[in-house]
Formats: sequence, structure tokens, C-alpha cells
Amino acid sequence: MNADTRIYLDHAATTPVDKRVLKAMLPFFTKTFGNSASMHSFGLEAEKALDEAREKLAQALSCTKEEVFFTSGGTESDNLAILGTVRRFKREGKGKHIITTQIEHHAVLHAIQHLERKEGFSVTYLPVSKDGFVSVSSVENAITPETILISIMHANNEIGSIQPIKQIGELARRKSILFHTDAVQTFGKLSTNVNDLNVDLLSASSHKLYGPKGVGLLFVRKGTPIESINFGGGHERGLRSGTENISGIVGFAEASRLAQENLEKEAEREKRLRDKLIHGVLKVEGSWLNGSRENRLPNNANFGFDFIEGEGIVLYLSDRGIAASTGSACSSHDLKPSHVLTAIGLPPEKAHSSLRLTLGRSTKPKHVSYTIEKIIEVVAKLRELSPLKKGVEFKTSAGWKEDEHEHGVECKH
Amino acid sequence: MNADTRIYLDHAATTPVDKRVLKAMLPFFTKTFGNSASMHSFGLEAEKALDEAREKLAQALSCTKEEVFFTSGGTESDNLAILGTVRRFKREGKGKHIITTQIEHHAVLHAIQHLERKEGFSVTYLPVSKDGFVSVSSVENAITPETILISIMHANNEIGSIQPIKQIGELARRKSILFHTDAVQTFGKLSTNVNDLNVDLLSASSHKLYGPKGVGLLFVRKGTPIESINFGGGHERGLRSGTENISGIVGFAEASRLAQENLEKEAEREKRLRDKLIHGVLKVEGSWLNGSRENRLPNNANFGFDFIEGEGIVLYLSDRGIAASTGSACSSHDLKPSHVLTAIGLPPEKAHSSLRLTLGRSTKPKHVSYTIEKIIEVVAKLRELSPLKKGVEFKTSAGWKEDEHEHGVECKH
Repeated sequence: MNADTRIYLDHAATTPVDKRVLKAMLPFFTKTFGNSASMHSFGLEAEKALDEAREKLAQALSCTKEEVFFTSGGTESDNLAILGTVRRFKREGKGKHIITTQIEHHAVLHAIQHLERKEGFSVTYLPVSKDGFVSVSSVENAITPETILISIMHANNEIGSIQPIKQIGELARRKSILFHTDAVQTFGKLSTNVNDLNVDLLSASSHKLYGPKGVGLLFVRKGTPIESINFGGGHERGLRSGTENISGIVGFAEASRLAQENLEKEAEREKRLRDKLIHGVLKVEGSWLNGSRENRLPNNANFGFDFIEGEGIVLYLSDRGIAASTGSACSSHDLKPSHVLTAIGLPPEKAHSSLRLTLGRSTKPKHVSYTIEKIIEVVAKLRELSPLKKGVEFKTSAGWKEDEHEHGVECKH
Repeated sequence: MNADTRIYLDHAATTPVDKRVLKAMLPFFTKTFGNSASMHSFGLEAEKALDEAREKLAQALSCTKEEVFFTSGGTESDNLAILGTVRRFKREGKGKHIITTQIEHHAVLHAIQHLERKEGFSVTYLPVSKDGFVSVSSVENAITPETILISIMHANNEIGSIQPIKQIGELARRKSILFHTDAVQTFGKLSTNVNDLNVDLLSASSHKLYGPKGVGLLFVRKGTPIESINFGGGHERGLRSGTENISGIVGFAEASRLAQENLEKEAEREKRLRDKLIHGVLKVEGSWLNGSRENRLPNNANFGFDFIEGEGIVLYLSDRGIAASTGSACSSHDLKPSHVLTAIGLPPEKAHSSLRLTLGRSTKPKHVSYTIEKIIEVVAKLRELSPLKKGVEFKTSAGWKEDEHEHGVECKH
């Protein structure tokens, strides 16, 4: 690795557009540029492309294309799924209780908090285990006759924990409660067959799987009561108004097709690299892994380091050509500790020490080796500067008390 | 013109992306692809591009870049402007009256109708003149102590009528009422200096000015009370959550820069072609122009033809390589007559006969000549087939009664 090294290990924040995806998109900017709502040949070409893209994405979800609704991204999909269903229930005089978890993405959490604070809904925010898992029994125990919606993410964007969606879905179906999952981090990485997952609503975003930014989808199972949350020309069969972003949608569909084509193989490859990374980084004294050792996204690792702040590590790694994150990109300029790390029980100082590395298609073994090397270097350097580590001698692990280990696994010290 | 002729005259529905715009966008798909919220170098590059794009668009509006908020398009901008301000007023216990016109785009009209039907607001839908203009005095007369928002479009998407926004803005300012304008059809075509227009909120959309689809902006004057209508990571200074669509935003900014560079010259050029088109088409017997002869968008013409339906004309023109529209693309599959044509006083059968032709940068004099020729041919053919024209002999203008002329100007018969 030389001085111009640039290693991108923040694929959970966003991904580069795959060259094949861009190639598929290009005709839809300058040539096949029609408005799919138009009746002339330009419009019909656009409508055809839209239809084919919808079909490709429906295949990836094992649903019908009539169940796929395009949006501007994961945030809008989450908002539409949640606000669109419960506001309709409210109008119809149905129950007003929502179940979610403490570790949802802000697009879910803030939408639900808004409903709680401003629109008269009551909410159960389920806790998670120290590895970041919600239990099916806790969902069951939270259900009341008033419960109208359960929204639980497929996998967490910070610590990668994969939730028991299939089982929660079975429960929700048995109780006739709508079930939404935010699959933004899993669509294109894990299987997202909506029938296996037993979900009624599923959100996905293009730019997390080598597609363009500014486009997402919401799967809405046929018969699901939902109303639009925006108003206009009645596009997407009346559910989501706004001229369809054809080039973006075509790119999203192609990105999905490419991801599905190679789903398991790439997941296995990234998992091996992830494990090598985890193995290497956990050799650092006073380090730990946030989230589960095994049941996590194939490309996700999230570490903690005693006595230093994650932000410093990210900045120093950036200086060394490595793009990493402390957690959610959305919250990277936020001074509050991550709500996810807080929910798995980390005290603020440990929650502030997080480093998230999310691998991708371009990640090679040599990148992982280099990254491990640089993390060791950077952590040592930051600890030299740290006002927190005063009096602590890492060689002998002093200051690293046994009862602080519970939040992670495989702490090497 | 040969058999492969394709003439696009539906620029109000959407425009092709300018090649220079696409060129500006390309690096942001595969190379500078970071999430602008990320702290590492990829994120900083994206943030820089975002900042530069915001500055370019602020220049086009003569506002500060802090007053520019990116959205997924015109519909979202309109929704955010309207729902975001009045819901905040409602929470603060302010008045609940909104003033708009009967000819707004559905993104405005349906948002306001929703507020009226479901959220307890009262609305005045101002009528317009037969040429499609709202009068400043009618706005003034509609104002009550309860009025919190006036939303009136800059120019109409169907008939091109340009509203007296500056004067309405002066009135709104004098009365301390927020003023929003939907400038989706004018941004990049007419001057949209927000200070000249006296607006507090202005919506614009990229794909109407040779930029990509899926991106728009809302200008929000500093100090305007507004709250977000979606929930998530708090992007766009907390007003609009969702990872910023950098490639789209960069394209939008470049499209705007190119449009501003040549604004008046291109407007003059299109106006000349438009006038040639109007002159030629109005030679058809039993035809008229919807909207004003002079005070209309430089690229817009909207005709009516007795005894035939606009949909038939659009389909036949499409067969002849000409892309036109009956009106709004959003409503092109709608069986109801256009609310705009109804508002200017057309009876349903005349409203159904509309043909909108909207010119653009690629439109050349020969396209206009060819289009006139084909319209004459198509109208004649459709009238031969028309069950409505039974007993009518067009050569002598029978069936075309004087009192039916009031909705248009320069009817040639």
C-alpha cells in the first residue's frame, strides 16, 4: 500500500455505483428520458423501463411488481411504511399502539417518536440483548389489543445484528398485526424473500447496494391498509406522488440484479475478510467487538477501544487513506453517544469509542491487513495523547476491569 | 423530416438531461460517491460538492445557500413548503386559513385539499380569469385574520399563464402572511430572484430544466417558521432527512447554471418558435388557444379543437413522431377534464380537446413547421372519424358558435 492508498470501509453509509449499473442508467438521462406518465412514445419507453425495473426488484423480493412502490430512498420508505399505515388505522378508529426496538435507524425511530409525541400514538421501544438482539418473546409480551404495527429492522446499521424477522413475522401474522422491516442494510446482502420473512412492509435503498442515491422502494403486501403521506399527481398507483426517477430506478434494479446474482458467494467472501479483520483488531489491548460475533451482517465489524474516542480514530484513519465511521453516517456529526451502543448497555465513554468498518465488493485481503496495521498504530498514538488513560499501562491491561467486558466478545487483553 | 422523425414537444412534462449536466454528474456515481454526512475524505468530498451545488442554486435564486434545501423533486418541495409551515402554525395555535388558486399543480392542490379535509384547515381556492390569471385584489379580498399561507404558482404547467407573483408577494409581506410559489415551470426559464418575487418559499425541480429526475429544492427564506414533514437522520439542517443525492444535486446545479447563462436569449428564441406554432395551428378551423396570447411561458402553447379529443390528437401525433400532451403529464391517464381548463371556464367537451405543446432547447423552426402540418392533418382525420361533428361542415365554420370563443384568443374560423 502506498501513499495514495484509499481504502473505503464505510459501505454501510453508502457504496459507489457499480460501473455496470451506471452503464444501464446512462440511456435514461439523455435518450430515453420521457416522463412515464406521458402518453407519447417517449413516455411509453419510460413506462416500459419502469415496469421492467419493478419486475426485477419484485423478483429480488419474491413478490409481485404491483407490491413494489418506488420512493426517494430508505428514509422515505420507512416514513411511508410507518406513517402511512398507522395514520390510516387512526382515521378508521383502530388501535394506537406501535411496537419497535430501541436500536432502529433514525428514519424509523424519529418517525415513531413523532407519532408518539404529536399524533397520540403509544409506543413500546423494546430493549435488545448485549449483542443487539430483540427477543421474539419480548415482542409477544408487548402486544396489546391496541397494537397495530410492529416495525423491527432486519439488521442493524451500526452493529450488524440480524434480528429474528421470520419468527417475529410469524407472530405478527398470527396476531393479525402489520409487520414492517427496515431492510436497508440487508437488501442485496442477505436473502430478503418477503414470504420467508413474513413481512407486510419492507424498506430498501439503492445506494447501499452499489446503486445510485436518491431512490428506494417500499414493498407493500397486497391488501395492506396504507395511505399516502405526500400529495400530488398520484404516481405509484396513488401511493407516492412525484415524477418517477427512471434513471435512478433502472440503476436500482440493475444493482439489485447484480447483487442477487452473487449474493451468497459475496457474503461468504466478505464474511471471511470481516473475520480476519475482527481477529486482527481484537489483538489490540482494551478493545472489544460491539454486537454478536457470529449473527451479524457479513460485512460489518464494530469495535470499541478503551480510553479513546471513535471520532479520533476515524480522523486518523482517514489521514492514512482509510474511510471508516463511528457508526451511522447520519449521526456522525452528533455529539450524543449512539442510541444503539447505549441500548446494548455501553456506558457513554465506551459508546463514544466505537469504530465501524463495513466491507464491500472492492475490499481485498491486503486492505484488511493494512487496516489492522493502521488501527493498531492509530489506537496507540491516540492513547498516548489521551487524557483518559493517565496511569494506565496497556501492556499489563491495567485499567481494563473484568466487569467491563460484558458488552463485547473476544476482548483480547 | 423523415420516417424516423422524433420531435419532443413535451418539455413541461420533463426534459432530457443536458450532456454537459450528465458530464458533471458522472464522477459522483463511481468516484466521488461518499455520503456527505461521513467524516472521512470520501464524505468531505461529497460535502464539498454538495456545498458548491447549493451555492450555484442559491445564486440562481439570489438567496443564501443556507436558504436552499434539497428534496426529491417538485412534489416533495411543494408538500414540504405547505404542510411544513401550516402544521407548525397549527401547533403554535396560529390561524388556520390558506389561500391558493383553482389552477395549482396537484402537488399543491392535493396537499391543501388534504389539509382542508383531514387536518382542520379552511381554504380559499381563488378563481382565475379566462386567460388563467389570478388577480391581486382577489387575493387581498380573501385574506382574513386567520390567513397563514398563500400558495400561488409562478406559471401554470398546462396553459403557461404567468401570475403576478411580485405584487402578490408585496401584499403578503404587507399583511405578514407567508407566501409560497411553485416555480417548477419557471425556474430556469424566467427570472426567479426570490427578492424580486417577494416570496418566502419557492419550489423548483431539476428535471424540468435539463437536469436529472429525482431532485428538487425548496427555497426557505431565513426566519420562515417551518417544520419537517419527514423524519430520520436530520439531513438538510434537520428539515429534510435522507442521504443527499449528490450526483442528482450536482446535476441540478449544473443544469441551473447552464439555464441561467442563457436564460433570456433562449426564452426569446423559444417565444418566437411558440408564436410561429400558435400562428400556424390557429389557422385550423374550430381551434383556439387556451391561456393568454402574450403573458405565458415562452415555451408553452395549449390549443383546443372543436369536436375532437386531445387524447386522440396526442396518440396520432405520437404515431407521426411528435411527442405532445393533453396537459399535465401527471393527469394524462385521467378521464376527468383538466381542473385548469375547467377553471378558465371551458365546458367539459372543450376541456377534453386540449393539446399542450411545450418547446425546448432542441426545438428548431423545421420542427414547428412539421408539427403544424401534422396537427392540421391529424385534426382533419380525427374530425372525419368524430361522432361529435355529425352535420358540421368546417369549411363554413358551422357548429362553431360565437359564444364559444370566449375561452381563447385568436380563434381562426
